Amino acid sequence: MARRYRQRQRPNEQLLELTLRPACARWTTSTVPGVGAAGTAPAQGGTMTRLALTDALFLLIEGRQQPMHVASLQVYEKPKDAGRTFVRDLYESFIAVDEVAPLLSRRVRRGFGGVGPLEWVHDDDVDLEYHVRHSALPSPGRVRELLALVSRLHGSILDRRRPLWEVHVIEGLRSNRFALYMKMHHAFVDGVSGTQLVIDSLSTDPENRNMRPLWESSAFPERQSSPSQGFSPTLLARSLAKMPGSLAGAGRAVVDASRAALDHPLTGAAPFAAPRTVLNTGITGARRFAADDYSLSRVKAIGKATGTSLNDVVLAMCSGALRRYLIDHNALPDRPLIAMVPVSLRPKGEAVEFGKNAVGSILCSLATHLEDPLERLQTINGSMNETKARLAALNASQITLYSAAMTGGVMTAPLQIRTAIPPVYNLVISNVPGPRTPLYLNGAKLQGLYPVSIVQDSQALNITVLSYVDQLAFGLLGCRTALPHLQRLLDHLTTELDDLDKLSLG
Amino acid sequence: MARRYRQRQRPNEQLLELTLRPACARWTTSTVPGVGAAGTAPAQGGTMTRLALTDALFLLIEGRQQPMHVASLQVYEKPKDAGRTFVRDLYESFIAVDEVAPLLSRRVRRGFGGVGPLEWVHDDDVDLEYHVRHSALPSPGRVRELLALVSRLHGSILDRRRPLWEVHVIEGLRSNRFALYMKMHHAFVDGVSGTQLVIDSLSTDPENRNMRPLWESSAFPERQSSPSQGFSPTLLARSLAKMPGSLAGAGRAVVDASRAALDHPLTGAAPFAAPRTVLNTGITGARRFAADDYSLSRVKAIGKATGTSLNDVVLAMCSGALRRYLIDHNALPDRPLIAMVPVSLRPKGEAVEFGKNAVGSILCSLATHLEDPLERLQTINGSMNETKARLAALNASQITLYSAAMTGGVMTAPLQIRTAIPPVYNLVISNVPGPRTPLYLNGAKLQGLYPVSIVQDSQALNITVLSYVDQLAFGLLGCRTALPHLQRLLDHLTTELDDLDKLSLG
Repeated sequence: MARRYRQRQRPNEQLLELTLRPACARWTTSTVPGVGAAGTAPAQGGTMTRLALTDALFLLIEGRQQPMHVASLQVYEKPKDAGRTFVRDLYESFIAVDEVAPLLSRRVRRGFGGVGPLEWVHDDDVDLEYHVRHSALPSPGRVRELLALVSRLHGSILDRRRPLWEVHVIEGLRSNRFALYMKMHHAFVDGVSGTQLVIDSLSTDPENRNMRPLWESSAFPERQSSPSQGFSPTLLARSLAKMPGSLAGAGRAVVDASRAALDHPLTGAAPFAAPRTVLNTGITGARRFAADDYSLSRVKAIGKATGTSLNDVVLAMCSGALRRYLIDHNALPDRPLIAMVPVSLRPKGEAVEFGKNAVGSILCSLATHLEDPLERLQTINGSMNETKARLAALNASQITLYSAAMTGGVMTAPLQIRTAIPPVYNLVISNVPGPRTPLYLNGAKLQGLYPVSIVQDSQALNITVLSYVDQLAFGLLGCRTALPHLQRLLDHLTTELDDLDKLSLG
Repeated sequence: MARRYRQRQRPNEQLLELTLRPACARWTTSTVPGVGAAGTAPAQGGTMTRLALTDALFLLIEGRQQPMHVASLQVYEKPKDAGRTFVRDLYESFIAVDEVAPLLSRRVRRGFGGVGPLEWVHDDDVDLEYHVRHSALPSPGRVRELLALVSRLHGSILDRRRPLWEVHVIEGLRSNRFALYMKMHHAFVDGVSGTQLVIDSLSTDPENRNMRPLWESSAFPERQSSPSQGFSPTLLARSLAKMPGSLAGAGRAVVDASRAALDHPLTGAAPFAAPRTVLNTGITGARRFAADDYSLSRVKAIGKATGTSLNDVVLAMCSGALRRYLIDHNALPDRPLIAMVPVSLRPKGEAVEFGKNAVGSILCSLATHLEDPLERLQTINGSMNETKARLAALNASQITLYSAAMTGGVMTAPLQIRTAIPPVYNLVISNVPGPRTPLYLNGAKLQGLYPVSIVQDSQALNITVLSYVDQLAFGLLGCRTALPHLQRLLDHLTTELDDLDKLSLG
């Protein structure tokens, strides 16, 4: 077990930040027949388990234009002693697996001969050479070619007749590197728990060789009794389903938030106040993925100098970059963009206990109507602090209810484009703290770890940010048609970081 | 126009062989509003044309498990003077296109706001970087890696919201080679006319450089006034639709064929007499593609020595290889396999005139119950000759009706697996003569040209053979689940060719 990464305690973690931890509870709660409570094992040979409604929803709303899988892109540096066949040998070891882990041996089918509810059934004959693929980049093998390949891979829908995952081992990346792209369906894993699976399967020890892939039953990260802190719409929906009827305090908070938004229309973020933008259109099946790393310590220094949080600075970078992108396309709305920011609440030092952790999401004005970067950062900080203060007065269940009321529910996003309802928010921006220690796969150092999320009708862009050692990895996923030149957002993020740096510290 | 390949007259062509010619009539007959008659131009900006029912059928029966596209795999040798960036430069020239040809700028939609018949509409904004892709093979870049990539590419379904084609420029193939994989939907092109498009876009002149890709409007092979000789189920269906009611002669031929089959159950091939095999099962969405070249002159020499046709020898090779494969899998049926062999009839020397060319298909016993290769070849020759003699007494319309009656219609294949009807035939084996002169793309010599066809429910294997200079290229497409180790058929084909060679000539 030495090779598995274990997250250190992070005492300075902010109240409203998500934390990536070794615990992954999602499948402990989703594989249980009928009820969706925690604890039993996934489907084994011959057995079947009904999908929880919230998980089944991800299959039901899926279509060729809107695949519902999440992925992680990992870039590795080959070890110094790597031979010419290092990547091929890795691939060969990936398909030489005795028994595939139960979670990854399940496929979905309809019960009662095709007309009943969706069920997980164990696949006794997983075709690993189908699921694990060896690919290569065309020359010159830059990150640009890698992103083009990942864009394509992420645009193809998983085959429903097989277990819903794929792994691509990608060689031909310049500077002695290679990449892994791992894709899993949202019906059994969300972006956070999927990334967590990857982290759990890596080692902090560069001398650890002959590691087994995470899909091998014997190597599959153990399920934990404590739940994940990761945000997922599924968890939000589940929490809502469990909620007691009377939550008068949360109702009050919703009213307060709406009144604040009416008083300050450009800074507050009330539901149904987001402007219509090019981000909120119907999507096609093709994707653009752009990703890059930014210095975590620079972002932190800006937060310190301005009295704002790391997350505020991340939101300000996104805000400024989006403002530039929309101006380039002559599409900046007068009113500020509204971001949905997933949050997970765990009071500092409090023991983790299931049901006491509120997972929710809040709306934040991105202040894209403001030109001055510092002014924008302060406005975002104000918007976030106001919500935090309001949330501080609530208990966990009330926070969940508040989140649901404010965001309209993630599940309704695809409905918005079909109806006359204006967008509830313009895009989701998730910021997830990740591993703080370098990780290794068979001696190959993980250089970058990039989340690849989901876009939906009316939500054509998603930004997910993940920290790793001293890097902040931004993963931007967009609909290929709605978001031309998506990669320019990466340059705009650099410009914004430079500007904030100059203005706050210089 | 010098760079376009023009097929020479082939006086020794057999009556029942298909011929790949420069004419490609399919889209001249399918893009006309309403009626499906020949001649007018494809949809232009703003216009729309309804799909012919036979073309629409390919979209209607398509699904994730059963994509209905055809493709061609082309392997090229780089010219001696090629620089390091030859393939990248080629790719760049492929996407630097002023105007995409009308046939490849059309996408499909449903009329009357989504509830009407299928229509072609012109797409004013074709995203060429989506359609034309640059890929690479992982090391060691053998043909094996190429076939693995093509298997994957052929298993993914085309996006209905875009023009229904894709091209992949594939680098990293050993021995100074690269490959192109071109995929088009069967709703507007069949295997023969798709391959013909490729041939027409190449040059016989190695000094011809700066060639424009076939999808560029100015370079798109001209449409011909004479129709294609190529077989297509669509053409068969169209011919049937045009047929006069009374065809008593053909009815007589069907009765004769059935009686012959009853008299000689192991050599005759009557409809609904094919044994159930592993080839005739439901299919999944994943594919295996295997392809290799065999010596055309060796095959011809065997035909000459045994008094059989080139096509008979090809069928005998397939028969022996399938026999070995099925024995390996302990799945050889007692009764011989029945192949459907598409044919096109044009009496030698007769002028090409639309409507006078019968396109059809005949059933042939593959005599897989016989162990001796020569005996098998003679039985196949007898089965083919019997049908040819019967067909010689019919006119073109009668031949078409006969074909339809004997094969049950290609369109019914997917129905067979769903019902209790035994398979009409076990697999389709097409043998299509191709170019006899070496072809070049920007100085890169075409080394191999492999057809990649379609499999369907109840037809899990397709064998298409295409000649090129002195090669016979066998392209084998199978459902990945139904046909494990498909590539072993290639070795079996070699063994069969060697055995026939030894027995007939030695």
